Amino acid sequence: MDVSTIIGVMVGVFFLVMGIVGTRFNMENLTAFLDPSSAFLTFGGMIASTFISIPLQNIFSAWRVAIRAFFYQLPNPVEIIDRMVKYAEIARRDGILALEGATRPDDDEFLVRGIQLAVDGTAPELIEDILSTDIEKLAARHAAGRRIFDTMGKYSPAWGMIGTLLGLILMLKSLDNPSKIGPGMALALITTLYGAVGANFIFSPISGKLAERSEQELLIKEIIMRGVMSIQSGDNPRIVRQKLKIYLPPSTRPSEE
Amino acid sequence: MDVSTIIGVMVGVFFLVMGIVGTRFNMENLTAFLDPSSAFLTFGGMIASTFISIPLQNIFSAWRVAIRAFFYQLPNPVEIIDRMVKYAEIARRDGILALEGATRPDDDEFLVRGIQLAVDGTAPELIEDILSTDIEKLAARHAAGRRIFDTMGKYSPAWGMIGTLLGLILMLKSLDNPSKIGPGMALALITTLYGAVGANFIFSPISGKLAERSEQELLIKEIIMRGVMSIQSGDNPRIVRQKLKIYLPPSTRPSEE
Amino acid sequence: MDVSTIIGVMVGVFFLVMGIVGTRFNMENLTAFLDPSSAFLTFGGMIASTFISIPLQNIFSAWRVAIRAFFYQLPNPVEIIDRMVKYAEIARRDGILALEGATRPDDDEFLVRGIQLAVDGTAPELIEDILSTDIEKLAARHAAGRRIFDTMGKYSPAWGMIGTLLGLILMLKSLDNPSKIGPGMALALITTLYGAVGANFIFSPISGKLAERSEQELLIKEIIMRGVMSIQSGDNPRIVRQKLKIYLPPSTRPSEE
Amino acid sequence: MDVSTIIGVMVGVFFLVMGIVGTRFNMENLTAFLDPSSAFLTFGGMIASTFISIPLQNIFSAWRVAIRAFFYQLPNPVEIIDRMVKYAEIARRDGILALEGATRPDDDEFLVRGIQLAVDGTAPELIEDILSTDIEKLAARHAAGRRIFDTMGKYSPAWGMIGTLLGLILMLKSLDNPSKIGPGMALALITTLYGAVGANFIFSPISGKLAERSEQELLIKEIIMRGVMSIQSGDNPRIVRQKLKIYLPPSTRPSEE
Amino acid sequence: MDVSTIIGVMVGVFFLVMGIVGTRFNMENLTAFLDPSSAFLTFGGMIASTFISIPLQNIFSAWRVAIRAFFYQLPNPVEIIDRMVKYAEIARRDGILALEGATRPDDDEFLVRGIQLAVDGTAPELIEDILSTDIEKLAARHAAGRRIFDTMGKYSPAWGMIGTLLGLILMLKSLDNPSKIGPGMALALITTLYGAVGANFIFSPISGKLAERSEQELLIKEIIMRGVMSIQSGDNPRIVRQKLKIYLPPSTRPSEE
Repeated sequence: MDVSTIIGVMVGVFFLVMGIVGTRFNMENLTAFLDPSSAFLTFGGMIASTFISIPLQNIFSAWRVAIRAFFYQLPNPVEIIDRMVKYAEIARRDGILALEGATRPDDDEFLVRGIQLAVDGTAPELIEDILSTDIEKLAARHAAGRRIFDTMGKYSPAWGMIGTLLGLILMLKSLDNPSKIGPGMALALITTLYGAVGANFIFSPISGKLAERSEQELLIKEIIMRGVMSIQSGDNPRIVRQKLKIYLPPSTRPSEE
Repeated sequence: MDVSTIIGVMVGVFFLVMGIVGTRFNMENLTAFLDPSSAFLTFGGMIASTFISIPLQNIFSAWRVAIRAFFYQLPNPVEIIDRMVKYAEIARRDGILALEGATRPDDDEFLVRGIQLAVDGTAPELIEDILSTDIEKLAARHAAGRRIFDTMGKYSPAWGMIGTLLGLILMLKSLDNPSKIGPGMALALITTLYGAVGANFIFSPISGKLAERSEQELLIKEIIMRGVMSIQSGDNPRIVRQKLKIYLPPSTRPSEE
Repeated sequence: MDVSTIIGVMVGVFFLVMGIVGTRFNMENLTAFLDPSSAFLTFGGMIASTFISIPLQNIFSAWRVAIRAFFYQLPNPVEIIDRMVKYAEIARRDGILALEGATRPDDDEFLVRGIQLAVDGTAPELIEDILSTDIEKLAARHAAGRRIFDTMGKYSPAWGMIGTLLGLILMLKSLDNPSKIGPGMALALITTLYGAVGANFIFSPISGKLAERSEQELLIKEIIMRGVMSIQSGDNPRIVRQKLKIYLPPSTRPSEE
Repeated sequence: MDVSTIIGVMVGVFFLVMGIVGTRFNMENLTAFLDPSSAFLTFGGMIASTFISIPLQNIFSAWRVAIRAFFYQLPNPVEIIDRMVKYAEIARRDGILALEGATRPDDDEFLVRGIQLAVDGTAPELIEDILSTDIEKLAARHAAGRRIFDTMGKYSPAWGMIGTLLGLILMLKSLDNPSKIGPGMALALITTLYGAVGANFIFSPISGKLAERSEQELLIKEIIMRGVMSIQSGDNPRIVRQKLKIYLPPSTRPSEE
Repeated sequence: MDVSTIIGVMVGVFFLVMGIVGTRFNMENLTAFLDPSSAFLTFGGMIASTFISIPLQNIFSAWRVAIRAFFYQLPNPVEIIDRMVKYAEIARRDGILALEGATRPDDDEFLVRGIQLAVDGTAPELIEDILSTDIEKLAARHAAGRRIFDTMGKYSPAWGMIGTLLGLILMLKSLDNPSKIGPGMALALITTLYGAVGANFIFSPISGKLAERSEQELLIKEIIMRGVMSIQSGDNPRIVRQKLKIYLPPSTRPSEE
C-alpha cells in the first residue's frame, strides 16, 4: 500500500489523540469525544447526501477505482521508456511483426493493446485515435471516482453543521438551567468536529491522492502511446528515447544518450 | 426510479429524525423543529430568488429534464455496443441500405437518427457535424436543468441566514427579559437549519445526480456517434467493437475479440 | 417584462414582510428594520466599490444591456427555424438574390446582416468569420454587463459586514450599560441583513437571469448563422430544417420532416 | 484619471465617515477607529505575505502597469476603426507602400508596428503570428499586474483575522476584570475592520478595474490586428469597416455603410 | 535567494512580534502564544493530511522543485534574446552546423538541447513537438510542486479549527468555574491562530511565488523554443529579434532594431 498514506494516517491519529488526552494523558477525555449519536447523524447524513448525489453503480465502480489507486503499484516511467526503446530495437532489427510475442502476460493492458495495434499494421491515425480516446476515458473514470470522495468531503462538514444546529436549538429551547449550557454546547459541537475531521483527515486527502495517482498513471499511458506511435513510424531507438525522456523530470532522465 | 436516491432519502430522513428525537425517542422534540413561518420565509425566499434568476420557460422545461433524469432508464453501454456491432454486420453483409428497418420504434431517437443519416448516404462530415452538435446542445440543456437546482441550493442557505438575522434583530431589540434569549435564538436558528438541510440534503445532491446522469447519457451518445461513423466508413464489425469498447471501463469490456 | 421576475419579486417581498411582521401582523416590527444610516452605509459603500471596479462607460452601457435583457422579447427559436427554412425555399426556387427584400424592417439586425452577406455573394468563410466574431463579441458584452451585477452582489454583503463591525466596535467601546447591548447589536446587524438581502434577492439573481437570457440569445444567433451558411451552400430546405432543429430540445422540435 | 474611480473613492469615504460619526456628527467616534498598531499589523502583514508571494521585479513592473491602467487614456475604438478604414483607402489608392509615413509619432506602438509589418511586405501568417503573440503576452502581463492586487485583497482580511485572534487571546488570557471585555474586543475587532475595508474598498476593486481596462485594451489591439490583416489582403475600405464594426456594440456602430 | 522573500519574512515577523508585545514591549505576552501542544496538533495534523494527499515520491521531488524555485537565478530574458540573435548571426554566416560548439557547458539544458536538435538537422515539426512537450511537462511538474504547498495551506487552518473545537468541547464540558472560561478559550483559539499564520504567512505565499516563478521560467523556455525554430528556418537575425522581443514588456524591449 501507498507508504505516505500509512505514515499520514498514523501521524494524524497520534496528534489527534495527543490533542485530546493532552500531555498528562488524561484518558477519560477520550470518552468526551465518543458520541455514537453524533457520529450517526454526521456520517449517516453524509452517506445519505452522497447516495442522492451519485448513481449506485458509480458508487461501487468508483470504490474499486479508489482501492486500486491505493494498492496498485504503478510501473516506473523510466522502466517503461526502457521497454519502449527495447521494442524499437526489436522492430528495427527484425521488423515490427517481431513484436508479436514481446509483451509479457502480466503487462499493462494498455501497453499490450498499443503494441498489438502496431503489429496488426493499423493505420497510425487510427492507433492514435484509439489510444488517446482510451486515455481520455480513463481520465474521465478517474475523475468520476474522485468526485465521490469530493462529495463525501463536502457533505460531512455540512451535516456536522446541521447536527450542531439541531443540538443548539434543542439546548436553547429549554434554557432553564444555566449550568447545562456548557455541556449542551459541547455536545452540539461534537458533530461539527466529526464533520471537520472526516472532511480534512479522510475524504478530502483521499481525493487529493487519487488526483495525484491519476496524473501519474495518465503520464505513463501517454509515454506508451507516444512510444508506440514512434516505433510504428520506424524511428530508430535513439530517437524513441529522445522523444520519451522529455516526459521525465531532468533529474531522473537516463543520462546515457 | 433511481435506487440510490431512494436509499439516500430514507437513510437521511432516518438519521435526521433520530438526531432530533434522540435515543430516548423524545417525540415532542420534533415539534420544536416544525415552524411553518420559518419554512415559508426560507423556502419562499429561495423560490423568489430562483424565479428572478431563471426564465419561466426554463424552470418548466428544466423540471422535465430533472424528472426524466431520475426516472428514465439509461440504456446499458455494453448493449449499445452490441447493437452497433450487429448493425455493422448487417451493413457489411447486405449493404448499408439494409439498416433501413433495423432500429426498433422504442429506440433512442438519437440512435434512430444516426442510423437514418447513414442509410440516407449523408456525407460523413455532415453526419459528424449534426450528431456532435446534437450532443453539444443536449449537454447545454442538461447544464441548464442543473443550474436550477444549483440556484435553489445557493439561495436556500442564504435565505436561512436572512431569516436568522431577522429573528436575532427582533429578539435583541426587545431584550427586556433574559429568560427569552434562549427560545428566541432557538427560533431564529431554525431558518438556518432549514436552509442547510434544503441545500445539503435536497438541492445540491439532486444537482450532483443530474451531473452524473448527464455524463452517462453523453457517453452513450458518443458511443452511438462513433459507431455510426465507423459503420458508415465500412469498418468491419471487429474494428467497430474495438473502437467502441474503449469507452467502457476495462472490467466491463466484452472479452470476446 | 419577464414574467418570472415579476413573480419572484412579489413572492420575495411578501415572504420578507411576513417574516418581519409575523403571523400576528405586528406592523411596528417593520420600523425596526428601516434604518436609513444602515442603508446608506451598506449600499453607498457597495456603489463606491462598484464605481472603483468598473469604468464609467461600462456602467452605463451595461445598464442598458441589462434593461434590454429584462424587457426585450427574444424571438422564438422554432419561428426562427421556420423563417430560415422559408428563406431556403425562396433561395432554391428563385435564386439567392431573391432574398434581397425578404427580411422585414423590424427583424433582428443580425439576421438581416447574415442574409445580406449571403445575397452579396460574400465568400462562405468570410460570412462565417464575420457572424461568429459578432456572436463572440456579443457574448463578451453580455458578460461585461453581468459582471456589474456580480460586483454589486459581491460588495453588498462585504459592506454589510463592514457596517456591522463599525456598529459592534462603537457599542463595545462604551459598554457601560449592559441593557444597551441588545439594541446596539440589533442595530449593528441591520447592515449585514441589508447586504444579504441586496445580494441574494436583487443583484445575484439579476446576474443569474442575465446569464440565462444571454445563453438563449446566443443560441438564436447560432441558429441564424448556421441557417445562413446552409442556405448559401445551396442546401435544400429539408436539410436546412434537419441541421437547425437539433438546436432545439426534442420536445419542441417540429415533427414534420 | 479614470472618472468612476474618483467618484467611487469620494462616495466610499463619505459613507464610511458618515457611518462612523453618525447623523449627530459625533467626531470623537473617529478616534475610536484610528489605531496605528492595528493598521501596522494588518497592512504590514499583508505586505509581508505579498512580498513572499510575488517576485520583487514583478511588484515594481506591475505597479507601473496598474498606474498606466488608471491614467492612460485608451483610444476610442470607433476612432481606431476610422483610422483603419482611412489606411485601407490610402492602400487601395496609392498602394500599401504609401502607408509608410501614415502613422503619427504619438500613435500606439502596436498600431505603428502592425502597419510597418504590412508596409514591409511581411507574409500574412507571420504578421498574424507576431501581432497575436504580442496581444497574448500583453494579456499575460496585465494578468500578472492584477494578481498583485488580488494577492493584497486576499491577505488583508487574512491578517485582519490574525490581528483579531491575537487581540482576543491576549484579552481572554487576563480576564480578571469583566469591564475590560468590551473595549478589549472592540480593539481586537479593529484589525478585522481594517482588513475588510482594505480588501473590499481598495484592493479588490482596483483588481476589478484592471480587468475591465485590460479587456478594453485587448479589444482595441484585436481591432488593429484584424484591420492590418484586412488592409494587407487588399480588402476594399467598405469591407474593412464591415469586418471591424462587429467589434463594437450595435449602438455605437457607425451607421454609414 | 529571492530578495522579496527575505524582505517579506522579515517584515512579517517584525509586525507579528510587534502585534504581540505591543508598543510597551510586554515581552511576557510572547509566552502566551507559545504553546507546543497546539503547534503539534495544528501542524502535525496538517502534515498528516498532506501525506495522505500526496504520494511520497512527489513530496520529495516537489520539495526539490520548490527549493530550486527560490534559489535558482533565472536567466534574464533580454540576455536570452541577445544569445538567440547571436546564434542566428552565426548560423547565417557560417551555416547552422557552426552552432555545434556555441553553447556553454553551464547553459540551460533546454537551450543546449534546442540548439543541438537544430544542428542535427531534425525536422522542424519534430523539434517543435519535442520542445513544446518538454515545456508542457515542465509546467505540469511545477504545478505538482505548487500543489503540495496549496495542500499545506488548505489543511493548516482546517486543523487549526479542529484544535479549537477540541479545546472548546473540553472546556465547555467541565464548565464548573466561570473564571476558567477566558483562559480556556484563549488556549483553544491558539490553534486557529497557528493555522491562520501558517496558511497566510507561509504556505499560501510560497505557492504564490512558485506560480510566478513558473510563469517566468516558462516564458524563457518559450522564447528559446521560438528562437530555435526561427534560426532553423533560416530567418535573418533582425527577424529573429523582432519575433522574440514581443515576449518582453515594451519598456524592456531592446530599442535597437
